[in-house]
Amino acid sequence: MEKVIVLLSGGMDSLVCAGLATRDHQNVYALHLNYGQKTSAREHISFDEICNHYKIPLEKRKIIDMTFLQQIGGSSLTDENIAVKNYKGDSTVIPDSYVPFRNSIILSLAVSWAEVVGATKLYIGANHEDSPGYPDCRPSYYEAFNKVIKEGTKAGNIEILTPVINMKKKEIVLKGKELNVPFNLSWSCYKSSAKACGQCDSCALRIRGFKEAGITDPIDYQQA
Amino acid sequence: MEKVIVLLSGGMDSLVCAGLATRDHQNVYALHLNYGQKTSAREHISFDEICNHYKIPLEKRKIIDMTFLQQIGGSSLTDENIAVKNYKGDSTVIPDSYVPFRNSIILSLAVSWAEVVGATKLYIGANHEDSPGYPDCRPSYYEAFNKVIKEGTKAGNIEILTPVINMKKKEIVLKGKELNVPFNLSWSCYKSSAKACGQCDSCALRIRGFKEAGITDPIDYQQA
Repeated sequence: MEKVIVLLSGGMDSLVCAGLATRDHQNVYALHLNYGQKTSAREHISFDEICNHYKIPLEKRKIIDMTFLQQIGGSSLTDENIAVKNYKGDSTVIPDSYVPFRNSIILSLAVSWAEVVGATKLYIGANHEDSPGYPDCRPSYYEAFNKVIKEGTKAGNIEILTPVINMKKKEIVLKGKELNVPFNLSWSCYKSSAKACGQCDSCALRIRGFKEAGITDPIDYQQA
Repeated sequence: MEKVIVLLSGGMDSLVCAGLATRDHQNVYALHLNYGQKTSAREHISFDEICNHYKIPLEKRKIIDMTFLQQIGGSSLTDENIAVKNYKGDSTVIPDSYVPFRNSIILSLAVSWAEVVGATKLYIGANHEDSPGYPDCRPSYYEAFNKVIKEGTKAGNIEILTPVINMKKKEIVLKGKELNVPFNLSWSCYKSSAKACGQCDSCALRIRGFKEAGITDPIDYQQA
């Protein structure tokens, strides 16, 4: 039975990936990376609750501590000295929440674990609209990374899948609705771990996505 | 002044890279990754001594703790339950010291740091003869990775250099001699942190390289 891994941050994009992976595969593993983001404890809870929902057993879950990224610095998500800015609607500027080359670090770790457990597919909820300024959220980046995997792994048979990469947030919400994913268990806010702030980039995109889809977001916001 | 980073494990291949980088550039940074290998404390000493030798100031050195790789497992270098085997001379088998996709994790971190400090070149002492069974030591792997960097970084201007990748160990020794690198400060053994064992894959290749080059290896061995 083919093994697949879902990179599950706990956000709605990765949740929809979990919905797709569990719909199409029976042997699903889940990987969560704690890279020292301010909301990491809250995301950890979402990870566990989503895994419980999809009946992913404990031995197929892994959380890797990547807090060493704080030693590299350069991002408001990991550096306590850089404040997370509110959303300004300018999608051409690379957000200050950017951790340089972060997705390559994440993908490399995920491929490493995939090779150990023998998984051949990796679902990742990268989304181009979500992060237009992040160079490592572009489809061409994932194509290039899949070539690195072919060259750099023993069997060359691990493939990264980015099923929501070209979707608008609205379409992701609708896809999640179709798959009946537990949106109430997901967490998107970059800024707060209690109630979602409703103001950061990630909240702003999520709120707009639900609004455009005409669906009520089941989570609570401080202000929206 | 262009900034460059040398990935400095403390072994002789990375030492020769440090010799090349400091010959050709004035603004050199050094990165060492502790990924939980059994000889990591000894390699750390070599890293510091080589940096001292090349007058790389403390603020341009970085050691990143990657011991989380032990959570992924699958290698004798990081897993205490897998013994490091002695060299058998069979270069077609992937050694048990293989950490899956390890070089991609290392390169991703190095590129991340390069983006933070503004470095545009990364020297890495990957060597094809050294590790013929490691898929991520092939030149084609590095070509593919450079494409990922172009796609996945803000400026796309960071390049990985692998100056010794196609050299025989003998040629690396001769290049080091030409550059007058401090071979006495380097550490290659996978197995021992006191005197080099002289038996593991890495010792065997080093000993043969010096022998073929007709140069005396300045470090001591338990047996050779």
